[in-house]
Amino acid sequence: MKKIIIGAATAAVVAAGTFGAVSANASAPQAAPAAPAAAVAKKADAVDDNLRQTTHLTIEAATEAAQAALKAAEKENQRVSVAVVDRNGTTLVTLRGDGAGPQSYESAERKAFTAVSWNAPTSVLVGRLAQAPNLKDIPGTLFLGGGVPVTASGAPIAGIGVAGAPSGDLDEKFAQAGVEALNS
Amino acid sequence: MKKIIIGAATAAVVAAGTFGAVSANASAPQAAPAAPAAAVAKKADAVDDNLRQTTHLTIEAATEAAQAALKAAEKENQRVSVAVVDRNGTTLVTLRGDGAGPQSYESAERKAFTAVSWNAPTSVLVGRLAQAPNLKDIPGTLFLGGGVPVTASGAPIAGIGVAGAPSGDLDEKFAQAGVEALNS
Amino acid sequence: MKKIIIGAATAAVVAAGTFGAVSANASAPQAAPAAPAAAVAKKADAVDDNLRQTTHLTIEAATEAAQAALKAAEKENQRVSVAVVDRNGTTLVTLRGDGAGPQSYESAERKAFTAVSWNAPTSVLVGRLAQAPNLKDIPGTLFLGGGVPVTASGAPIAGIGVAGAPSGDLDEKFAQAGVEALNS
Amino acid sequence: MKKIIIGAATAAVVAAGTFGAVSANASAPQAAPAAPAAAVAKKADAVDDNLRQTTHLTIEAATEAAQAALKAAEKENQRVSVAVVDRNGTTLVTLRGDGAGPQSYESAERKAFTAVSWNAPTSVLVGRLAQAPNLKDIPGTLFLGGGVPVTASGAPIAGIGVAGAPSGDLDEKFAQAGVEALNS
Amino acid sequence: MKKIIIGAATAAVVAAGTFGAVSANASAPQAAPAAPAAAVAKKADAVDDNLRQTTHLTIEAATEAAQAALKAAEKENQRVSVAVVDRNGTTLVTLRGDGAGPQSYESAERKAFTAVSWNAPTSVLVGRLAQAPNLKDIPGTLFLGGGVPVTASGAPIAGIGVAGAPSGDLDEKFAQAGVEALNS
Amino acid sequence: MKKIIIGAATAAVVAAGTFGAVSANASAPQAAPAAPAAAVAKKADAVDDNLRQTTHLTIEAATEAAQAALKAAEKENQRVSVAVVDRNGTTLVTLRGDGAGPQSYESAERKAFTAVSWNAPTSVLVGRLAQAPNLKDIPGTLFLGGGVPVTASGAPIAGIGVAGAPSGDLDEKFAQAGVEALNS
Amino acid sequence: MKKIIIGAATAAVVAAGTFGAVSANASAPQAAPAAPAAAVAKKADAVDDNLRQTTHLTIEAATEAAQAALKAAEKENQRVSVAVVDRNGTTLVTLRGDGAGPQSYESAERKAFTAVSWNAPTSVLVGRLAQAPNLKDIPGTLFLGGGVPVTASGAPIAGIGVAGAPSGDLDEKFAQAGVEALNS
Amino acid sequence: MKKIIIGAATAAVVAAGTFGAVSANASAPQAAPAAPAAAVAKKADAVDDNLRQTTHLTIEAATEAAQAALKAAEKENQRVSVAVVDRNGTTLVTLRGDGAGPQSYESAERKAFTAVSWNAPTSVLVGRLAQAPNLKDIPGTLFLGGGVPVTASGAPIAGIGVAGAPSGDLDEKFAQAGVEALNS
Repeated sequence: MKKIIIGAATAAVVAAGTFGAVSANASAPQAAPAAPAAAVAKKADAVDDNLRQTTHLTIEAATEAAQAALKAAEKENQRVSVAVVDRNGTTLVTLRGDGAGPQSYESAERKAFTAVSWNAPTSVLVGRLAQAPNLKDIPGTLFLGGGVPVTASGAPIAGIGVAGAPSGDLDEKFAQAGVEALNS
Repeated sequence: MKKIIIGAATAAVVAAGTFGAVSANASAPQAAPAAPAAAVAKKADAVDDNLRQTTHLTIEAATEAAQAALKAAEKENQRVSVAVVDRNGTTLVTLRGDGAGPQSYESAERKAFTAVSWNAPTSVLVGRLAQAPNLKDIPGTLFLGGGVPVTASGAPIAGIGVAGAPSGDLDEKFAQAGVEALNS
Repeated sequence: MKKIIIGAATAAVVAAGTFGAVSANASAPQAAPAAPAAAVAKKADAVDDNLRQTTHLTIEAATEAAQAALKAAEKENQRVSVAVVDRNGTTLVTLRGDGAGPQSYESAERKAFTAVSWNAPTSVLVGRLAQAPNLKDIPGTLFLGGGVPVTASGAPIAGIGVAGAPSGDLDEKFAQAGVEALNS
Repeated sequence: MKKIIIGAATAAVVAAGTFGAVSANASAPQAAPAAPAAAVAKKADAVDDNLRQTTHLTIEAATEAAQAALKAAEKENQRVSVAVVDRNGTTLVTLRGDGAGPQSYESAERKAFTAVSWNAPTSVLVGRLAQAPNLKDIPGTLFLGGGVPVTASGAPIAGIGVAGAPSGDLDEKFAQAGVEALNS
Repeated sequence: MKKIIIGAATAAVVAAGTFGAVSANASAPQAAPAAPAAAVAKKADAVDDNLRQTTHLTIEAATEAAQAALKAAEKENQRVSVAVVDRNGTTLVTLRGDGAGPQSYESAERKAFTAVSWNAPTSVLVGRLAQAPNLKDIPGTLFLGGGVPVTASGAPIAGIGVAGAPSGDLDEKFAQAGVEALNS
Repeated sequence: MKKIIIGAATAAVVAAGTFGAVSANASAPQAAPAAPAAAVAKKADAVDDNLRQTTHLTIEAATEAAQAALKAAEKENQRVSVAVVDRNGTTLVTLRGDGAGPQSYESAERKAFTAVSWNAPTSVLVGRLAQAPNLKDIPGTLFLGGGVPVTASGAPIAGIGVAGAPSGDLDEKFAQAGVEALNS
Repeated sequence: MKKIIIGAATAAVVAAGTFGAVSANASAPQAAPAAPAAAVAKKADAVDDNLRQTTHLTIEAATEAAQAALKAAEKENQRVSVAVVDRNGTTLVTLRGDGAGPQSYESAERKAFTAVSWNAPTSVLVGRLAQAPNLKDIPGTLFLGGGVPVTASGAPIAGIGVAGAPSGDLDEKFAQAGVEALNS
Repeated sequence: MKKIIIGAATAAVVAAGTFGAVSANASAPQAAPAAPAAAVAKKADAVDDNLRQTTHLTIEAATEAAQAALKAAEKENQRVSVAVVDRNGTTLVTLRGDGAGPQSYESAERKAFTAVSWNAPTSVLVGRLAQAPNLKDIPGTLFLGGGVPVTASGAPIAGIGVAGAPSGDLDEKFAQAGVEALNS
């Protein structure tokens, strides 16, 4: 497995007078000039049983989705917060809308987290509590309408959460507008 | 971008009587029978400017690395804890060694987090505090020897942290044994 | 002070079948069709010694600033996270850039918080620790270059924080690009 | 947008030998000698689509309201704590009444937070849980009588919470006495 | 020890249809119509080696002190937050002054906590760090000028903390104005 | 109010070469050689409307009660943890019994906190949830049998909590044994 | 009790130039060359009423159990996380399986904690909530199927938790595979 | 390994109508009537490579040590808090002494944790910071005199921490009095 190089080698590079993060990174962003997909394919293919690839939204796409959700809410004069999290549950984008209630920010994050965890809209997940009511005790979750998953090839890669409108149905309508922005 | 499907469609599937997570997932594990790398390549290539691929250790590899670090310590009669985190800072594996001090567990996680954040061994990063002493106030970090990054194509994809030996140098020697296990 | 109405009166309105937040709000957004400034002036003038007005960035402006900071970093091939907080220290926007280290997200928020708290770039604030080293123990702060305040009439109304580049100077250059986007 | 000045300019001022916060501030308090409302109006009007004004209670008004609530409780020999939070959910004033139970302090803050989040008394909000029981899982909330919103022009600008009396109805009666003190 | 009665007896009383706290309390407030001091004396004297009396500020006094500190700051055009904590480190009063920086609120509480813990102004305590620098790692403390103890018979019974002015000396001057208000 | 002395005066004393807490204290322990109750009475009487006295268990009594509860459990071969908190909700004593489950320690503290907050055994308080189910969302509380209040003159001055036995009734029986030890 | 030696004596040893933990430890691992059990027996027997012995899984056994649980899940194409905790509730091993949802990691730890606390599978414990619904409010617990205890001589010595499969029954089946690996 | 029985078997027992913890436990307390040491020896010897034994203080011994430390302080008119933690860093006993400062309680726990982590008095450990200053950033630690380890056969089995006296030397003297009580 030649491509995994121990830290000591890297350290020689980074010790040369900087104190921040090294910008090199294992991702293969689309903006790179040449054949990135092929490169990824080759690495994953030839090299290494120790590695796996995962798919994520770019920050540009995540921001676009969040803004679309916020705009959908503003069009209906609703004041909401929006969050996008990745499949790790890590927050990528948050937008606290003008005039949104203070409870909306963390609610949006938790709805997004919940949707991506179970790959289903939170409005659907609320229904599952009838069978397993204590699911809602899992840290980081919130079982209220307003969270929807983003999928690629049927698998969850992100969650979008919206909170602050007068009903979870409205929140979820705005979150779905965010998802749709990714398809246009 | 046809392959991103909104949550509502997925919901129809998951509503059918289960309350756990849907197992489908965007990763492309090597164990899959056919040409996964090609599939990834195709998706990233043809489909979608909204997506990016990132590289991770498999849980099997991460566990193997952690166990190698622990064994290296045991060989020298040192009692340590070991942690492996991914490039998101998310913990993949922890092992609390027999008889390791109670401070070692969270220390190991933080060293691993610190190493992967700056793509350098923590023993090197300690030296950078001379220039920027407040780096050590960043939440989740610990600037003590014992953390090393794992890289692929020169970019950090994981961190291994060891804590509990009488010196940071020893801890780091064991962490590097973990990295080396990935190369054999 | 006629315009402050007790909650019971409001309750009659909100009890009518919704469970979300009421969207009415004391802010006076510029998008309102008619004379909002006059309305604000009148209320503040005529009514009420109990009230004060404060100035904030709109979410649209805050997002624009955050995106400008992120783009400035990307132009130099740096991978960073960005945060915008208001004068209350409340986070308005976060953007976790593609490939930014896991330590960057909370660092960006704390730098923004620190800059708006003391109305100065964090690179300047680092220097003040010579006099009062324990300032850095104040919860929520981070004394590393990369945070800049946004001011209106000389007073701080927001902070922009960037983290993840190899030096605080670079981070702060990107944060300032965010501030400048508000002036163009 | 001339009135937003980047931090560097401000920094020149603040670097001159102090280490605390700069006292200038974007608010326009009523105590200022001349035409503050007009000044606010002009800035919001002429300058800047990036800015919005929000309305808050002065600390003097918030304290007066909290004291009125506490006195109303004392008159009925009830021992309570009182909190006032603003529309951001940020606590402005807390008063731990003599002999109030240890659970009352944080309860009062949460009731105030809940009331201002949904612009309704918490006694009303309890009823909404029939429709959406998981609202009560939103961080920072408490669905027990004793919280009331303060409004200006119908929009929520603050919340007052009281806790410690033998019933939520009593708590809420005292909180309303706090709101009424703002109207007299 | 006849006066300590087990909970079961009390329970009979409180079970009668209320769900809040019982208002009876072991404190002996001065406002009680008759001879409270004597009653206290008698109880402490005659009854019970298991009991001890401690002295606290009334909430009225604590509020008065906090307001005096805030006013002293406002007189000098400084925007600060103020906190009063008791000898247990429990917060009694907080006032977030108009326009005070977001870092000031928790700073004020911690300065008050620190002052009452060591019965000395925090400006003095800063000096002790030369001998024992790790004192500042004790949870809840902040070693910056601005906290002063309140004493009764030479022993600490409360702490007042102020934060937000351009220097700790100024903050502490305002905190002392709060203490002095108790003596007038 | 001569007896409240500002911190500056005290500071002169404590600056003389120590860095710990000053041992003088406003409490009036029974062990003091002469007439402490009288002294307290005089101070409260003559001096100062700003002060109030509260009654607490001595640490000796609290420890004795905790040990009695633990012994009662051991006599029935139950493995439990025990906690005693004061009327502020501050923990005075904890005992983690041999072999008690890991959940028992914090449970004991919370039961004690709950009992002293509402001055009733937690077994009684559980019943009140029928009326106000969200009481159990108050931070720090636990509505399970096993907590009992300690009272003086009918007012709550402490709580004793026991956890770890197979039923809350058993836990509460042991907690009451702790209370009874104070009466013997 | 000769074998308990005060810290001062030990300090002489450890002061000699190391800063890590001393590796000597009171445990008696089976790998030690000679008669460890006898040594333990002798110490416990002859010496000291102050000491007690407790039984734990070795890290090797705990890792083996965790890996067996993970493999059982992978065999059924389920993506889960696994945790093993000891009788103290302290985490020994965590494994975040490839593609497991972000909610699974902490869920697995809590299920393991819950199972070892009450020495029963969490699927059984869910049923007990009918009698005592507030058991689920105990910090650290999670009442969902997927946690099983490990016992020695009938007493709980560890818990294994699995989370991430579509049902708690599946999770628990995998956790039991982990337990069974210890018996083979 | 016959003696490890899966949870399902145990569950049959515990399902019979109780909801608390099962009291059986793997420890072998000295109070058991017959040959417990031999039993331990046999189990560890004959059975199972998966198990290890560790040594702990009994709760009775830990309480005795804590009380001895507190008494030593009281004899010198010092007001302190005391904590005893085990080798896992888990708190066994806490005693908040009458009149001890509010900072003392958590300080005592952290000193005890630090002493048992490195098997040295904290006064010695302070000296090691010269070599590795960031050791003090490890969560849960406090590098101030006042913590001492308790050892058995030279290995750490517990830590005793004292805080609240005017110097760390005094605190540590009292903590050592606690250790000595175990030897008498």
